[in-house]
Amino acid sequence: MSAPIRNLQVNGARLWASLMELAQIGATAKGGVCRLAASDLDGEARRLFIGWCEAAGCTVRVDRIGNIFARRPGRDASLPPVMTGSHLDTQPTGGKFDGAYGVMAGLELVRTLNDLGYETEAPIEIVAWTNEEGSRFSPAMVGSGVFAGVFELAEGLARPDNVTGVTLGAELARIGFAGPEPVGRRPVAAYFEAHIEQGPILEAAGLPIGVVTGAQGQRWYEVTVTGQEAHAGPTPMPRRRDALVGAARMIDAVNRIGLAHAPYACATVGFVQVSPNSRNTIPGRVFFTVDFRHPEDAVLTQMDRDLRQACGEAASAIGLEAEVKEFWHFPPTPFHPDLIAAVRAAAAAQGYPHQDIISGAGHDAVYLARVAPAAMIFVPCVGGISHNEIEDAKPEDLTAGCNVLLNAVLECANTAS
Amino acid sequence: MSAPIRNLQVNGARLWASLMELAQIGATAKGGVCRLAASDLDGEARRLFIGWCEAAGCTVRVDRIGNIFARRPGRDASLPPVMTGSHLDTQPTGGKFDGAYGVMAGLELVRTLNDLGYETEAPIEIVAWTNEEGSRFSPAMVGSGVFAGVFELAEGLARPDNVTGVTLGAELARIGFAGPEPVGRRPVAAYFEAHIEQGPILEAAGLPIGVVTGAQGQRWYEVTVTGQEAHAGPTPMPRRRDALVGAARMIDAVNRIGLAHAPYACATVGFVQVSPNSRNTIPGRVFFTVDFRHPEDAVLTQMDRDLRQACGEAASAIGLEAEVKEFWHFPPTPFHPDLIAAVRAAAAAQGYPHQDIISGAGHDAVYLARVAPAAMIFVPCVGGISHNEIEDAKPEDLTAGCNVLLNAVLECANTAS
Repeated sequence: MSAPIRNLQVNGARLWASLMELAQIGATAKGGVCRLAASDLDGEARRLFIGWCEAAGCTVRVDRIGNIFARRPGRDASLPPVMTGSHLDTQPTGGKFDGAYGVMAGLELVRTLNDLGYETEAPIEIVAWTNEEGSRFSPAMVGSGVFAGVFELAEGLARPDNVTGVTLGAELARIGFAGPEPVGRRPVAAYFEAHIEQGPILEAAGLPIGVVTGAQGQRWYEVTVTGQEAHAGPTPMPRRRDALVGAARMIDAVNRIGLAHAPYACATVGFVQVSPNSRNTIPGRVFFTVDFRHPEDAVLTQMDRDLRQACGEAASAIGLEAEVKEFWHFPPTPFHPDLIAAVRAAAAAQGYPHQDIISGAGHDAVYLARVAPAAMIFVPCVGGISHNEIEDAKPEDLTAGCNVLLNAVLECANTAS
Repeated sequence: MSAPIRNLQVNGARLWASLMELAQIGATAKGGVCRLAASDLDGEARRLFIGWCEAAGCTVRVDRIGNIFARRPGRDASLPPVMTGSHLDTQPTGGKFDGAYGVMAGLELVRTLNDLGYETEAPIEIVAWTNEEGSRFSPAMVGSGVFAGVFELAEGLARPDNVTGVTLGAELARIGFAGPEPVGRRPVAAYFEAHIEQGPILEAAGLPIGVVTGAQGQRWYEVTVTGQEAHAGPTPMPRRRDALVGAARMIDAVNRIGLAHAPYACATVGFVQVSPNSRNTIPGRVFFTVDFRHPEDAVLTQMDRDLRQACGEAASAIGLEAEVKEFWHFPPTPFHPDLIAAVRAAAAAQGYPHQDIISGAGHDAVYLARVAPAAMIFVPCVGGISHNEIEDAKPEDLTAGCNVLLNAVLECANTAS
């Protein structure tokens, strides 16, 4: 095994240029990106990425759930690859960096190794996972989830578009990304993912690098409140069973539950559907989602109890029915100590100020952690804002994160033998 | 002038059969009707109605906003007509009786006069007004509003579908109901409208007939709450500007404002649109509507103040902006004393128990009251429920209302000279 060369530097300008070119696919008037999973625009971004990978000498394979793997060979073809990447899909009003940064950082890393004529022991694979966002096809992280055995392939392919009902599988086939490769079930030496923090902590601390030690647990719910539709005019207030009034109190309670478990708890209602949603009809039914996050399972359990109690009380106070259905429970996930150490060492060696941080968001790395050693690198984003068209990040921070990624990947790709 | 014949009786079974046949157009699985204004189904219902009117010997005209007038001639062609009718469009999850009853009652009245060979002094016109509900094209009561000069014709035709944006004018043309007749600007001797109560008062009192003395005032608002979109995971609770949490508190406040002005106030949020409406994104913007009703303008003024204060407080508490825009102010409308007296006398002559009642809902009669003497007749509906697929009414009550309508119309059609 060759001794690793320390402190290699990527080409930050090239990384930025690729990010900006990619961001033109689905660009919105407000400077963001709308590139929903398995849409035409997603297909276009995927083809741009593949073209770049092939130009960089990689062999590209697509698996049956549409995950893309671009492989740069190592000295020892028998070694499992070191993987790095993220996703190319965005939220409906997403930004230029969420997901795209991790994929482009992987590409830049490979381009840099090519520039240097650097051969690793183990192969390196850049990966773009399918449908990380979950905003078109719920749940989130379907591609990495099927790869990690969290979902069956058939289950992933059958996920319906939340508006039209067309399946993820049908849409992948339509855009030409229902690949031939089996999904997962192959060894991965290590998985690294670089990502914008999507929160305000690093920016507030003035640090370019977050060493991500794990991910918060998440519990996601669907709440259906049922009352009685009636005409808004002639129905006296005391006789009403207004599902929206009940739902409004529940939404306020979700917020209170989050605040009650400060500073780490997050509690969000992001999606609401009112039925029949007519100005002069008392709503008979409201459906909404709840997203709870906390690094400790015990606190999540308490938040779960609080939610059920609050919904029950709000419903019974005005004669409504409330169904609280948990549809996703994601325990807190610690990352792999060796990979965390590799990230921390790379940051230290390059002289980047850094701190440990917990990921509040779900990421593909969280599923990968179930089947391979995994870790993440965070860089700050402006104002901590993400899932928003004004999402932004500084080129120097993106370069710093990519330098840390490069050196952490090399550490693993050269010790993997 | 011939002396009026008192206490004529309509054919209740025929009235019921026509209502049931009409209700098949747009029938829903739950027993309701979805027949949105200027849709294909609305066109089908209009053609069925016109066919029936022509078979009853009426001359049918359609005006440029799609209102249909079916005229039964009187002895004196120079007299202005006595009009009666309502509307054929429904809510998205509407019932069989709201609107349809008033139109079919007018038709039954004409059929009964034909059976009897009865000739009135003044002509009688059965009218079906365009887009009463306002759920597809807001605001409500556009057809009668243009007729009464409340809206300009061009303004009415330009109202956009709330989903696709296609205009009411374009849709009327598409279904063949952009008629050639000028709208309004002609004398109307009297306008009567029979309608289900859409509230619980008559049923609770055990009365078949409500003598409607006027309509509640209404103030309609559009509220836009603006915060900051952000990722639901990594954004700490105290840093959030969650537009939905603010909107939820405002929706609860609207309900409290209604309860505070009991027993006559109604306060409803019926329509909510959350943006971007994604499970794991903190909502950056919420749009919702408010519908306030009360028979006294002074109370509506207080409710308006309460609303603006509550929205301002809820917004500033969490750093949001709230825009409260009133887009419809409808003062309380008393009906015409002579027509109210005619309805009361007809109910008394037939021995129907009755009481005076205020309409909580908007109706075409409320606009007609601006340009002609107008009044309404209410009959009970089951459970007071309307704007709901389970909306129901008893055949004997519908017959009673139609008998009262017939005799009140005859009173005016024979004294109009």
